[in-house]
Amino acid sequence: MSAQETLKVIPLGGLGEIGMNCMILEYADEMIVVDCGLIFSDLDHFGVEFGIPDFNYIRDRQDKLKAFVITHGHEDHVGALPFAIRAGLNVPIYASNFASLLIQERFREQGLLDTSEIRPFKMGQRIEFKHFKISTVSVNHSIVDSAALIIDTPVGKIIHTGDFKMDPTPFIGEEIDLKAFGRAGEEGVLLLMSDSTNVERHEHSMSESVIYQAFERLFAAAEGMTIVSMFASNVGRMAQVFDLARRLGKKVALAGRTMDQNVRLGAQVGYVRGVEDVLIGLDQVDDYPRNRVIVLSTGSQGEYRSALLRISNGEHGQIKLQQGDLVVMSSKFIPGNEKAIGRMINNLFKQGAEVLYEAVHDIHVSGHATRPELRRMLELVKPRFFVPIHGEYRHLVHHSALARETGMPPENVLLAINGDVIELTPDSCRITEHMEESRILIEGREGNDISKLVLKERRQIGETGIVFALMVRNAETRRILSGPEIITKGLASEDTEAQLVAEARDVARRVILQYEDELRAGAVHIDLQENVRIELRRFFNQHIGKKPVVLPMILDL
Amino acid sequence: MSAQETLKVIPLGGLGEIGMNCMILEYADEMIVVDCGLIFSDLDHFGVEFGIPDFNYIRDRQDKLKAFVITHGHEDHVGALPFAIRAGLNVPIYASNFASLLIQERFREQGLLDTSEIRPFKMGQRIEFKHFKISTVSVNHSIVDSAALIIDTPVGKIIHTGDFKMDPTPFIGEEIDLKAFGRAGEEGVLLLMSDSTNVERHEHSMSESVIYQAFERLFAAAEGMTIVSMFASNVGRMAQVFDLARRLGKKVALAGRTMDQNVRLGAQVGYVRGVEDVLIGLDQVDDYPRNRVIVLSTGSQGEYRSALLRISNGEHGQIKLQQGDLVVMSSKFIPGNEKAIGRMINNLFKQGAEVLYEAVHDIHVSGHATRPELRRMLELVKPRFFVPIHGEYRHLVHHSALARETGMPPENVLLAINGDVIELTPDSCRITEHMEESRILIEGREGNDISKLVLKERRQIGETGIVFALMVRNAETRRILSGPEIITKGLASEDTEAQLVAEARDVARRVILQYEDELRAGAVHIDLQENVRIELRRFFNQHIGKKPVVLPMILDL
Repeated sequence: MSAQETLKVIPLGGLGEIGMNCMILEYADEMIVVDCGLIFSDLDHFGVEFGIPDFNYIRDRQDKLKAFVITHGHEDHVGALPFAIRAGLNVPIYASNFASLLIQERFREQGLLDTSEIRPFKMGQRIEFKHFKISTVSVNHSIVDSAALIIDTPVGKIIHTGDFKMDPTPFIGEEIDLKAFGRAGEEGVLLLMSDSTNVERHEHSMSESVIYQAFERLFAAAEGMTIVSMFASNVGRMAQVFDLARRLGKKVALAGRTMDQNVRLGAQVGYVRGVEDVLIGLDQVDDYPRNRVIVLSTGSQGEYRSALLRISNGEHGQIKLQQGDLVVMSSKFIPGNEKAIGRMINNLFKQGAEVLYEAVHDIHVSGHATRPELRRMLELVKPRFFVPIHGEYRHLVHHSALARETGMPPENVLLAINGDVIELTPDSCRITEHMEESRILIEGREGNDISKLVLKERRQIGETGIVFALMVRNAETRRILSGPEIITKGLASEDTEAQLVAEARDVARRVILQYEDELRAGAVHIDLQENVRIELRRFFNQHIGKKPVVLPMILDL
Repeated sequence: MSAQETLKVIPLGGLGEIGMNCMILEYADEMIVVDCGLIFSDLDHFGVEFGIPDFNYIRDRQDKLKAFVITHGHEDHVGALPFAIRAGLNVPIYASNFASLLIQERFREQGLLDTSEIRPFKMGQRIEFKHFKISTVSVNHSIVDSAALIIDTPVGKIIHTGDFKMDPTPFIGEEIDLKAFGRAGEEGVLLLMSDSTNVERHEHSMSESVIYQAFERLFAAAEGMTIVSMFASNVGRMAQVFDLARRLGKKVALAGRTMDQNVRLGAQVGYVRGVEDVLIGLDQVDDYPRNRVIVLSTGSQGEYRSALLRISNGEHGQIKLQQGDLVVMSSKFIPGNEKAIGRMINNLFKQGAEVLYEAVHDIHVSGHATRPELRRMLELVKPRFFVPIHGEYRHLVHHSALARETGMPPENVLLAINGDVIELTPDSCRITEHMEESRILIEGREGNDISKLVLKERRQIGETGIVFALMVRNAETRRILSGPEIITKGLASEDTEAQLVAEARDVARRVILQYEDELRAGAVHIDLQENVRIELRRFFNQHIGKKPVVLPMILDL
């Protein structure tokens, strides 16, 4: 290994967006990847479910790849792992206790258990490779067993915080191990990469214990059934609900498949206690006085077919809301979901329930550090170089500014985005290259990728409708035997469509007549298919003010 | 007129949503309509631009219709007027000074000035019909010349607040005329209908003067160009920018067509003063020291092709951002627009600008009353009956609860939604009927309406793509002469599409073979077209995990 060797840090996702966290660390003949997440779609429609990182850079250097190291079990940190495995990147996956259970469940569902190796780690454990010596450090977050990584490399010590907050009183698990960060700071940290999600918030994040008190008041005062929705991965919060239910003599039923799964996993590792004392089936809900029942439900984002959405529409088989029932939405509104959530809340009210949500009641605390905590992290670690991670571009800008406020020289604070190649030596940190980012969009249960072209076609036909013009031609004489036949889908309302199609047929017929004139004259100059397309689009633009996708087709007989 | 006659109040829009405000007041042989707004689409995609109320109820009683009375000039209160006029409802339109100017501009653009009659009213003016005697009352809102309506009717006095807040120090116009509400309260109010938008907020709304101070600090400290985006209808805020520019020796340029238009209108009626002293053209921006230039821009919601969006993408012909420039987004993020706005903000940062927005800086105040103001309105007016208006369902629920908190008997607080028929007598107020709501969705520059069926088709083809399967048949022998030919759009990525189409052709061919077997045997049982459709959908579901729209077509020759 030459003295000139640099450490390359390459974010494939998560820098310039919330989601799809995935970062390559590469030194000489060794490469490890921190996190491998997905991003839920901006596109909502057009069939796109989510995006995953483009693994090409890794695949091109696959012999170097030693491991995935996962900071925690959220989808934006683990959700792309099945795609990585199927892409042949089946190296060991190091993940904390609970994260490894979630990954295992997912892999079992997708038949990937045999082709993968998941290695659970404990907090404080060291994971050693040739060049990378990783210490896992416990942090607080909205999922248990979240880790930061302190990594000794040949060029120096680097820290990846993962997602974190500082919670002095978490309900389960321990307080963030600030001593470990402090020790690293004493020893000297070359590079800190830290969570930027909540850099726009100025107040210290609230402790999970705030939730316990709020839930206690609400549960104790309940006149009807209480439905609590939350992210199904928030085992710490589920544990509070079970604890309170036991103390208050209530029963808990679970609505939603992932809620079932994660309560089971949480109980299995001892994070959710006393489940057997209070758990009842959804079919037993009516056997108890209504105000003794708490339902833990998925669907906090108004997701399609989720339990809470079905309840809000009165379409849930077992849970029907009544006057006096209370719905507690204990999660944030993820940007982009506001309208879907808003509709669901309105419908819950229409079912007669009272609904509490973040805008009107303190029933959720964020899992991400705010400015005072981010500042404290910077001051504890005292890094030589700083790269903000995990945030949209504006969050990275604000986190950079915060780092400079702590006294870091501006040139030591790097604003990097997905695809940047950051090169580190023992005394330098620079962005040396930028790889054009090319995320993969995924649709459907088979996880097929969707190309940009297909997406563009869907957007076009979804916004304007499609018109199909069919003609049958004699292959020898080149004369049109039949057609034009016009078929439309999504074009115009029923009352105008027949008239439009009749007129469009005349338009196409005129093009055919011109073509046949030329044919008889022995010199065809016009491109029949293309001209039909152009004339039909012009016609529709004149008559309905838009140009639909027009597909002409000539069948030669 | 019989003593049994009741006053009917029928909200066509705005109760159960933010937008499309439109309310019918009907008594005996007379009907007036308060506001006639549009709602921007929930649907974003699929070509829908906005929705408008269904005017059928009004058209069926057109001889009764006497007037539209407009509370203020926002799109959700006036935007559907052109559609009403084109639907033949061309009765006089009463609107305040500035609202009437905005309506006039719109009508001029759409060639409707000749078929309509706009009658501007002054605040405090009375508008008298046979049964309805309307007093217009000045209120504060985010557009000048906003009115509440106090209406004397044969059954009693009713009040429609329009959109309002209580601002003791508005920059232009007067403070809300609370005395008028107080007097009405003394005289006795049968029904109050009041704006529910901000009922979830507990702090008194801030005054527009807060903005003046914030802008002054920002403009004075500017190192580069300052771009201020706001709703183009917020003439009061524009006036502050011009005032400050003059005081601070700066120049103002306008970006966006509606900004041009509304500054001109605002100057015309004397609300925006000193325009000629500071206004420069966009092409003159570079003639001045950069920190002496303020650009007032449209596009606060990240709208397609808006000035600020083009600036954020570096695609604006005249405005290019530089390091040191400041973008001040002085408007709220309308729910549903967060992602588009977020992307725009990130891109503005990428262009090198600093960006201030509501989450990080107090540069916007809402135009709607919060709980303390809403409570004060209830207490001033002391209505016998109360119907919350202008809000999503949850806002109406919360506003109802607030009314009960003020001591109103629960049975006198009505939670009505669009399509409810509220009937009032001198001592009763009841919902007697519900008309199924059927809003009209509008697309494109021609303002065509889109049926639910077309929308459904677009959604389907936009999410899954479309497959055409063509067959040519001998009309006499019924035998297939050519095909199946398979054409797809938006179905699958280029690398898999050819193989899929080839296999799909085999699937369709097998159906054809079966059909021809039956044909030869003299008894065709299968529906060729339908069976091709079913088999192809099954095939695609197996291979790509989704069922696209399949359109089989048989051409008989």
